[in-house]
Amino acid sequence: MNRREFNTTLLSAAAGAIIPFNPALRINGARLNAHLAEIAQFGRNPQGGVSRVAYTEFDRQAREYTMRLMREAKLEPRIDAAGNIIGHRAGRDNSLPPLTMGSHIDSVPEGGNYDGQVGSMGAIEVAQTLSENGITLRHPLEVIIFENEEGGTYGSHAMTEGITEKQLNLVSQSGKTIREGIRFIGGDPDKISSPLRKPGDIAAYLELHIEQGGILDSEKIDIGVVEGIVGINQWEVTIDGFANHAGTTPMNQRRDAMLAAARFIDMVNRVVTSLPGRQVGTVGKLQAQPGAYNVIPGKVTLGLELRDLDAKKIDSMFEKIQAEAGAISKATGTAFSYKPTNTIVPALCDSRIQKIIESTAKGKGLSTKYMPSGAGHDAQEMARIGPAAMIFIPSRDGISHSPREFSKPEDINNGANVLLQTLIQLDN
Amino acid sequence: MNRREFNTTLLSAAAGAIIPFNPALRINGARLNAHLAEIAQFGRNPQGGVSRVAYTEFDRQAREYTMRLMREAKLEPRIDAAGNIIGHRAGRDNSLPPLTMGSHIDSVPEGGNYDGQVGSMGAIEVAQTLSENGITLRHPLEVIIFENEEGGTYGSHAMTEGITEKQLNLVSQSGKTIREGIRFIGGDPDKISSPLRKPGDIAAYLELHIEQGGILDSEKIDIGVVEGIVGINQWEVTIDGFANHAGTTPMNQRRDAMLAAARFIDMVNRVVTSLPGRQVGTVGKLQAQPGAYNVIPGKVTLGLELRDLDAKKIDSMFEKIQAEAGAISKATGTAFSYKPTNTIVPALCDSRIQKIIESTAKGKGLSTKYMPSGAGHDAQEMARIGPAAMIFIPSRDGISHSPREFSKPEDINNGANVLLQTLIQLDN
Repeated sequence: MNRREFNTTLLSAAAGAIIPFNPALRINGARLNAHLAEIAQFGRNPQGGVSRVAYTEFDRQAREYTMRLMREAKLEPRIDAAGNIIGHRAGRDNSLPPLTMGSHIDSVPEGGNYDGQVGSMGAIEVAQTLSENGITLRHPLEVIIFENEEGGTYGSHAMTEGITEKQLNLVSQSGKTIREGIRFIGGDPDKISSPLRKPGDIAAYLELHIEQGGILDSEKIDIGVVEGIVGINQWEVTIDGFANHAGTTPMNQRRDAMLAAARFIDMVNRVVTSLPGRQVGTVGKLQAQPGAYNVIPGKVTLGLELRDLDAKKIDSMFEKIQAEAGAISKATGTAFSYKPTNTIVPALCDSRIQKIIESTAKGKGLSTKYMPSGAGHDAQEMARIGPAAMIFIPSRDGISHSPREFSKPEDINNGANVLLQTLIQLDN
Repeated sequence: MNRREFNTTLLSAAAGAIIPFNPALRINGARLNAHLAEIAQFGRNPQGGVSRVAYTEFDRQAREYTMRLMREAKLEPRIDAAGNIIGHRAGRDNSLPPLTMGSHIDSVPEGGNYDGQVGSMGAIEVAQTLSENGITLRHPLEVIIFENEEGGTYGSHAMTEGITEKQLNLVSQSGKTIREGIRFIGGDPDKISSPLRKPGDIAAYLELHIEQGGILDSEKIDIGVVEGIVGINQWEVTIDGFANHAGTTPMNQRRDAMLAAARFIDMVNRVVTSLPGRQVGTVGKLQAQPGAYNVIPGKVTLGLELRDLDAKKIDSMFEKIQAEAGAISKATGTAFSYKPTNTIVPALCDSRIQKIIESTAKGKGLSTKYMPSGAGHDAQEMARIGPAAMIFIPSRDGISHSPREFSKPEDINNGANVLLQTLIQLDN
């Protein structure tokens, strides 16, 4: 039974009418945190956190649990052909595109209990709060649990850009191919194009998420208003020198690829930090060949990654890096080459929704900060088909993708309340 | 039949008498280079050079070939318990300790045709030249082909310091344990201590070798007079930072072990090259964990190697490196630790023999240069039990341990002729 008819405070909320702003409306924080504790049991690591890699048995169990919560929240769950779980509730005007919110419940190996899970349980909690308070939105409502976010936002890709046959054949972290994995969780890879949506097919997409960085925590700020999800460019950089005997080759006759790599890594750090802004640059992997104490490395391969909200800034940093590498190349007698291995363009969040998030948070006495998301999220895919926005809450010490990942219950509750109120205001 | 009695130029060379210096006495260069071409067939790589790893079938075949050459040169070959081949010829006064010379014929995988082989074939050629010219030295003569030099100078170790039970159980490059390998080539690991010699048990040890570096080649010098074999110190250096998300962790909140490693490598190069002298320092291997584009490395392990003729200089460079690493550690929020993994003390060559080599070479119109050996050799072991010295010839472009290793026939002949004359002068 729909309780709306019996809720006197909402008698004015007839089809098409505006739901009056009720700042006292709140999610049930105890229930939300209890759900987070319950889902943490699926794939729990002995040392804490979870290993709930997409397409594993733990993933499937947690998805079943999530669909049960959806039903309790009066959402009708279905699994689309890509394996996304979509919990649907009708609106007062079902000719409108749906308001969507969601996140993911898969994890990296030895991940934490908050990444994805806070936004997933939070979105279901918001739906349950609406239901319990007899609120039916004007728009249809969808809570979407995207499949395999950690492996490369496959679920949201399938909904916005499509998954290719080639991608279906890739082997995922679970050991299964994407195709096998999607089938394993109840999708139908033979109909992989059916979840595709067009721009305008959604009214908006909202995602609550932990920051996964240390800015909010170190600055003691409650809510991050996400300006966009940074672009990510990755290159495999190869440095060719000449392998030679480390004992018999004088220092001034060497063409040491490791020395060139060392100067490159230090220079990347200098170039990235010498500009104002929040761009980041990382060399996270390196292989030296042949790789012995007593041989001067003849070849080094390393991974360079640059991220920023502005794709032009990434381009200009990369140009500067290449120019400075030219000098290193000359000084060390080595040669640099660059192979782009991944390019994700920046996705800007909707500025109108950013302002709603900010004013909603401030209205609740919460401090806010505008910031980019340095990590990739399903929201960046959803931004292709409609206005998208993200709400960040603090991560203790900025730690994520680790059993030590932690966000305080009060911060989680704050984030879910901001999500609730932002959704209601967007609906109006 | 010993031809000495019939060589009129040497009638004065009765027991105990001095063999007159005969600068016209020369080795047979065509024969020496033919022997080098013949031994190159055992384990020949398709792309040139040899893969004649100790204890393999190719090693055994080349050893049989070498013993045949010894017999032709009127040396009586035997195999000691460690697997060394010792070709012996009686002297005029067999109460004297033997004059010894030699090298090795095993190679690294995909090695060249000169490292070890020039000194081995050269020593046999010198013995054959003496024999053909009817010269019997005052001292007994030994040509020693040391087993498994490339795997860690096992043969010369067995003769000077001993091989432990633990070492016998190590697995060699061939896949066999040292024990199995020694047995395979005709040694007797059950009597591994029998080859041991004491200081004074040899009159001297001489070794002709390719430089394996590019100094003689680039400076167009004919003969290197080796001052000693450098000491080698190796450390495993561990840098502990904190692994974190490369997108969400601002540049100023990172504890990036890779950045610290990069600055360390560049600093090692600066410390080593800022001092006068011929010391070398190398970082040849590096492992970053977890090793992904999008994770700031939390841990880097790298291999540091320092070499010099002076152990005190190595110590002082390492102290400087540790001190400078302290500043890198502070600036990057990382911690450095050092584990010594290998220490080989420098071995000085006998200064009297160095002068004989120099004057002999100059007497033949050859240019000379005093220099350290940056590589390890059996001579450094033999220096423990008697005066030892090495004669270097140029390596084209300084390339060694490679199929591209090359030394010119005329340089090989020059080296063998200097070896011959040095031996004769030492005998007197």
